[in-house]
Amino acid sequence: MRLLVVNMKAYENAFGPGARELAREASRVEGVRVILAAPALVALKIAEIHPDVYVQHVDAVGYGAFTGFLPPEALRAEGIRGALVNHSEHKVRLKELAELIPRARELGLEVLACADTPAEASALAALSPYAIAVEPPELIGTGISVSKARPEVIEGAVRAVRRIAEIPVLAGAGISSGEDARRAVELGASGVLVASMVMKAKSPREKLRELAEALA
Amino acid sequence: MRLLVVNMKAYENAFGPGARELAREASRVEGVRVILAAPALVALKIAEIHPDVYVQHVDAVGYGAFTGFLPPEALRAEGIRGALVNHSEHKVRLKELAELIPRARELGLEVLACADTPAEASALAALSPYAIAVEPPELIGTGISVSKARPEVIEGAVRAVRRIAEIPVLAGAGISSGEDARRAVELGASGVLVASMVMKAKSPREKLRELAEALA
Amino acid sequence: MRLLVVNMKAYENAFGPGARELAREASRVEGVRVILAAPALVALKIAEIHPDVYVQHVDAVGYGAFTGFLPPEALRAEGIRGALVNHSEHKVRLKELAELIPRARELGLEVLACADTPAEASALAALSPYAIAVEPPELIGTGISVSKARPEVIEGAVRAVRRIAEIPVLAGAGISSGEDARRAVELGASGVLVASMVMKAKSPREKLRELAEALA
Amino acid sequence: MRLLVVNMKAYENAFGPGARELAREASRVEGVRVILAAPALVALKIAEIHPDVYVQHVDAVGYGAFTGFLPPEALRAEGIRGALVNHSEHKVRLKELAELIPRARELGLEVLACADTPAEASALAALSPYAIAVEPPELIGTGISVSKARPEVIEGAVRAVRRIAEIPVLAGAGISSGEDARRAVELGASGVLVASMVMKAKSPREKLRELAEALA
Repeated sequence: MRLLVVNMKAYENAFGPGARELAREASRVEGVRVILAAPALVALKIAEIHPDVYVQHVDAVGYGAFTGFLPPEALRAEGIRGALVNHSEHKVRLKELAELIPRARELGLEVLACADTPAEASALAALSPYAIAVEPPELIGTGISVSKARPEVIEGAVRAVRRIAEIPVLAGAGISSGEDARRAVELGASGVLVASMVMKAKSPREKLRELAEALA
Repeated sequence: MRLLVVNMKAYENAFGPGARELAREASRVEGVRVILAAPALVALKIAEIHPDVYVQHVDAVGYGAFTGFLPPEALRAEGIRGALVNHSEHKVRLKELAELIPRARELGLEVLACADTPAEASALAALSPYAIAVEPPELIGTGISVSKARPEVIEGAVRAVRRIAEIPVLAGAGISSGEDARRAVELGASGVLVASMVMKAKSPREKLRELAEALA
Repeated sequence: MRLLVVNMKAYENAFGPGARELAREASRVEGVRVILAAPALVALKIAEIHPDVYVQHVDAVGYGAFTGFLPPEALRAEGIRGALVNHSEHKVRLKELAELIPRARELGLEVLACADTPAEASALAALSPYAIAVEPPELIGTGISVSKARPEVIEGAVRAVRRIAEIPVLAGAGISSGEDARRAVELGASGVLVASMVMKAKSPREKLRELAEALA
Repeated sequence: MRLLVVNMKAYENAFGPGARELAREASRVEGVRVILAAPALVALKIAEIHPDVYVQHVDAVGYGAFTGFLPPEALRAEGIRGALVNHSEHKVRLKELAELIPRARELGLEVLACADTPAEASALAALSPYAIAVEPPELIGTGISVSKARPEVIEGAVRAVRRIAEIPVLAGAGISSGEDARRAVELGASGVLVASMVMKAKSPREKLRELAEALA
């Protein structure tokens, strides 16, 4: 089944009633797996409505004296399925990725690791995360779809990752229509990672539905 | 009223059933204000039981495209009262403190800013947070109480802060008994910040009660 | 004597022959103290020509196992006079500033600490650096002079700093002419911090001379 | 020819006369390539004595407004051959490694990228640095040699790297004798990365000579 990951970021409607509404819509989608990457603060609330929730970052620490950091163990204890990491807006040290990704896997958590470029994706592939999302940062939030404007980035990332391991690759940045999403899949992606095009849409719920139907 | 702030850190019992139990105990305390500084992931769950909750870190961002970061506006939207910042285990750039502390105040949020030393406390005082906690990092988690082993740090921090502004000073690090807490107050502190001495106690609930009674 | 600090940043002519030429020009200036804030890589080479050199960053570490970090002790051992710290492009944790600034002072080194805003300047003042430079980051590199466009930032920073300690305040951001520099001094600054307006000038040497003459 | 890389770190004798003496000794070694990884502040001074010098860190920036950061272009302009990056004491974001390593290669600079573990080494291999050094951080500075105490880390790193690319692997951590160095080579390493065992030796020059002779 294809993946549709919505990075809610820290947009105003990632909190409060807007977040709950989006979760309700996500829970009604069929034929595609919708993952909501939620702020940690509201992740449990959203998971009560739509259980397929990731947090947007998790730390390479275990339980212990780590004020303000989030161990993967805590995600499991609270029933969260996984985490986005290394997003273009939240880059992580390689050392932490090399510790975190295997540990999360052992805990049964899914890590969706983001890459800005095929080169970064290939390094991530060596660590075997659950999936890799490639997003050229210069297109994030622009509405200029990576699948139209930079198809070679998707193809290049798929190739670079496959050379090292069999890991699903998602495409992101500027994906704003069902057609953009379908095109990403034609280029070899196993799904898409979207953010502003849903969260800042006039109707986030309708946009989510449009993307989901295109991928189903 | 004196303050008893429990930094739950990322200890195992900061999540799951242990966290809920501690919250129930906190909600029964009288005569002293108990603030639970909770992991963002469980802060809303804990606040349902004991409403006086802080998160352990908040970011100097607003609403927007900030994957994995937490804006103070989101705390207000979700009903969280404040945040610990700049803890010894989670140090923050001065620029971010200088942005965050005034913004949080405007939003009606409380910021408890931590300092390792009187010098750091005096710089924080210039930014007028709600309160300042001073904790010599070499005593954190040791059970050697700052109020016994390093009373001059508490007195020095109170003096350094007062020279600049009238801001309550809490004492932390190694506070492990009601006596330690009382001694901190005698030295000029308006309360205490505790972590492992409660969270890793045989019975966190009893330890919380002991400290609360000493401060009431 | 007024201060004219040139932050050479990592511009191409901060290295190679361009850097040496600028140093020669600086060594000929009279009536104003010209400090070249040089990249660590070339600081000693530049100091051979013009001894009044700072590095652009120094770390809050001592001698020891700190790969790739620069202790203030090393500056003293190699004869460098001081360091710029906390520049808008290189922000530093408060804890490190609170450690570094007093230590540098004890070692006889000068620390010029940068602030983006009067609030940040006031926190720095509590740590008593040698001088404080205030630069609104939105004007850096624009050629729109802080002394013309945002005089209240200079005046506000001078006031905020004076409330806490007697520390010279420099003004920076967009200072591109002798007139801009003089205006900054009229607003209470003890000198200016410049970068692109010298380094990217058609003739950096002439621009340096123009600014120096205005301040002499 | 085998590689003997001395990470001078920020030890007291990485600056001042001690650094110059070590460089003189390095310049006399034959039969093995000795690279001195020097602090940026003294790298050019050391390169005047022994030209085979790296800096201990380089930044993923180009020429421009990057106060206190060091672009690889500047290394080339000043005649420095390469850089250590991602040392256990100076960990770097994956994104920066993925940008820096290919750029440095295009500039003709050598990057020696460090890994704490075979997993980290395999991710680095996907980026094709000049060489990879593996150092279990828990052995750094202990005098307990990785080649004796943790031979499986060297063998595992060599295997993990070879699976992805043909890149020389150096072994580091606790290497304190010629025998330790030889043992590392027997395990598949192309040389060693040493630090405290030379820099803090009674006679750094003699220790350097001992290691060099063992590898020649």
